Amino acid sequence: MKFHTRKWVKPEDLNANGSLFGGKLLSWIDEEAALYTIIQFENNKVVTKYMSEINFMSSAKQGDIVEIGMEVVKFGNSSLVLKCEVRNKMTHETIITIDNITMVNLGQDGKPKPHGKTEVEYVVNRLKDR
Amino acid sequence: MKFHTRKWVKPEDLNANGSLFGGKLLSWIDEEAALYTIIQFENNKVVTKYMSEINFMSSAKQGDIVEIGMEVVKFGNSSLVLKCEVRNKMTHETIITIDNITMVNLGQDGKPKPHGKTEVEYVVNRLKDR
Amino acid sequence: MKFHTRKWVKPEDLNANGSLFGGKLLSWIDEEAALYTIIQFENNKVVTKYMSEINFMSSAKQGDIVEIGMEVVKFGNSSLVLKCEVRNKMTHETIITIDNITMVNLGQDGKPKPHGKTEVEYVVNRLKDR
Amino acid sequence: MKFHTRKWVKPEDLNANGSLFGGKLLSWIDEEAALYTIIQFENNKVVTKYMSEINFMSSAKQGDIVEIGMEVVKFGNSSLVLKCEVRNKMTHETIITIDNITMVNLGQDGKPKPHGKTEVEYVVNRLKDR
Amino acid sequence: MKFHTRKWVKPEDLNANGSLFGGKLLSWIDEEAALYTIIQFENNKVVTKYMSEINFMSSAKQGDIVEIGMEVVKFGNSSLVLKCEVRNKMTHETIITIDNITMVNLGQDGKPKPHGKTEVEYVVNRLKDR
Amino acid sequence: MKFHTRKWVKPEDLNANGSLFGGKLLSWIDEEAALYTIIQFENNKVVTKYMSEINFMSSAKQGDIVEIGMEVVKFGNSSLVLKCEVRNKMTHETIITIDNITMVNLGQDGKPKPHGKTEVEYVVNRLKDR
Repeated sequence: MKFHTRKWVKPEDLNANGSLFGGKLLSWIDEEAALYTIIQFENNKVVTKYMSEINFMSSAKQGDIVEIGMEVVKFGNSSLVLKCEVRNKMTHETIITIDNITMVNLGQDGKPKPHGKTEVEYVVNRLKDR
Repeated sequence: MKFHTRKWVKPEDLNANGSLFGGKLLSWIDEEAALYTIIQFENNKVVTKYMSEINFMSSAKQGDIVEIGMEVVKFGNSSLVLKCEVRNKMTHETIITIDNITMVNLGQDGKPKPHGKTEVEYVVNRLKDR
Repeated sequence: MKFHTRKWVKPEDLNANGSLFGGKLLSWIDEEAALYTIIQFENNKVVTKYMSEINFMSSAKQGDIVEIGMEVVKFGNSSLVLKCEVRNKMTHETIITIDNITMVNLGQDGKPKPHGKTEVEYVVNRLKDR
Repeated sequence: MKFHTRKWVKPEDLNANGSLFGGKLLSWIDEEAALYTIIQFENNKVVTKYMSEINFMSSAKQGDIVEIGMEVVKFGNSSLVLKCEVRNKMTHETIITIDNITMVNLGQDGKPKPHGKTEVEYVVNRLKDR
Repeated sequence: MKFHTRKWVKPEDLNANGSLFGGKLLSWIDEEAALYTIIQFENNKVVTKYMSEINFMSSAKQGDIVEIGMEVVKFGNSSLVLKCEVRNKMTHETIITIDNITMVNLGQDGKPKPHGKTEVEYVVNRLKDR
Repeated sequence: MKFHTRKWVKPEDLNANGSLFGGKLLSWIDEEAALYTIIQFENNKVVTKYMSEINFMSSAKQGDIVEIGMEVVKFGNSSLVLKCEVRNKMTHETIITIDNITMVNLGQDGKPKPHGKTEVEYVVNRLKDR
């Protein structure tokens, strides 16, 4: 699994108990899943359709750095299934895992549309081919 | 199911496609689950432990009003299992459902602690009894 | 008075003294008044026209849960007068009261427009009638 | 009246109708009143106690610049009464006026405490006197 | 140099060490430079093109009040060069200085466009002349 | 240069002209520099001391994905000099470059403190060595 985006846990990210607000974490994951999918589909219009069960294994506190990992599980016809792990950057302790985040490619009419992709592509290669 | 908290979808809540950002929605749900649990446990220190699978059934757009419903599924020893539905206030169309959100009661040491509750209580009754 | 929306006071809601920022509270009230009015008028285009004097009776601190209540005072021709109370959910202590929040219904041209309503309606009944 | 703080109306400040969210405006005013008072009292611990009626005279839209003016009405024993006007920077059209915002000086115990001030002071003069 | 906009450092403005987040400060400066330029150019479409080196001379903590000063260095053909200082309102201690912030006037096509201004103008005078 | 953190440009990130707000971009860069430094120093207490000149080469619009790259220029005694580039993820067009961001390691007393590092380290190797 590749970990890209990193977040520094700041006061604005805390819940009323002073630990990382779970809702903030879910919001970071959803953004990362969306942009990972946009990169793969080369299409801005994507939506989150489904998330499998979510285990909050540990938390994070102010000043911690967390990193968000995504991995492709499967390319569907108009969808993409991702697996996600969020962990503490310094200790690699797992904070949350989600086995299946299903993202869907949309057409201009807002309906699912085949994306024509079957494997992970890297932007650097796409740009070389031009 | 009782629906309390309502949200007015504003520009700051939108994703880059102009519809309600899924991460924002998850963040609203997590906050509602936390405060519902705090009210039941009469204890500020609670955490989200688990969410079962999440179906994004429809979305919302700028100007829509959504309401968030919670219902108790089960009281555990130190936990509480909630069921959640978010719907469009004006049409009652379901936006998202989650069958099991497990919240845990924590002691001062940050470890799970029995909460001693077995059924839903209303603040108004607690206040009468004082 | 019916209390719907609830807020969990988080670090991002505090002023520099560590208590609930009054501006945040006013912002929550204005949102609640707007969405209450939208529900009654069945029209997205509403504006806040007037608020009567505001008494900050007590404050709230991090971790508190507050709930926002609204009640109709009067239906005008193109306006709606609301009464508002915000209180601590756990103790029912009043935090703020406003006796008159005047909301106005707007037409497509942005000018006041009669709303044709004379009493509080419930969405559930509207949906039944369809 | 002196106008200091200026705000550039950005998408995050809009309500669902695309005009400046009234709650955001009230939040800006409350912050300005607090910091104006802190400067006068030379004390960080101040609270908003009361606001007289609020007239929303005109609105603002994305890209507008608004400026917030404050003026002292009266020094009380432990309080300060301010008058506020918010206007469009480019046209000087009034957006909102509030005749009486009462701010209170607090001691370490969180209770009202005399502030010993009877007239507006300027920081530049205080610094010269040192 | 004239200091207008003031900010009250709140928990949402802090970094994970509890002092004012440098990124927030830069964001406040960029907004102030943009709105200062809009006022001079009488044109909403402006962009930040360049900032010279930035010295973080001291920091600020929760509850501090900072004020942001801007001064015109030079009017270019389609640009405006500003000088900026941010300081602690109560002590006048400098927090940050930037000697050159270059703002550019844009036309409807998004390209640089002459602004026709050669000296600082005051809105109050413009309004008198009408 | 390694590019890690990615951002999806959402409505809340836009300036009043509808393009990516420069202040938001600077705030993202400052956060990335801080967390990169924390990872290298294995110390949470770091501050931004200096940024060399900043060129805004192109902008980004709603829906774009940007990625933030950091590279070590030099290890000082208590400091770290970084080089930064932000680019559009899909086209690799450069948005901003900064040649020198100087971060400083602080001790418990808030004063600069030697960090004892002379080269880039990877968390994965540190964890292996334990």
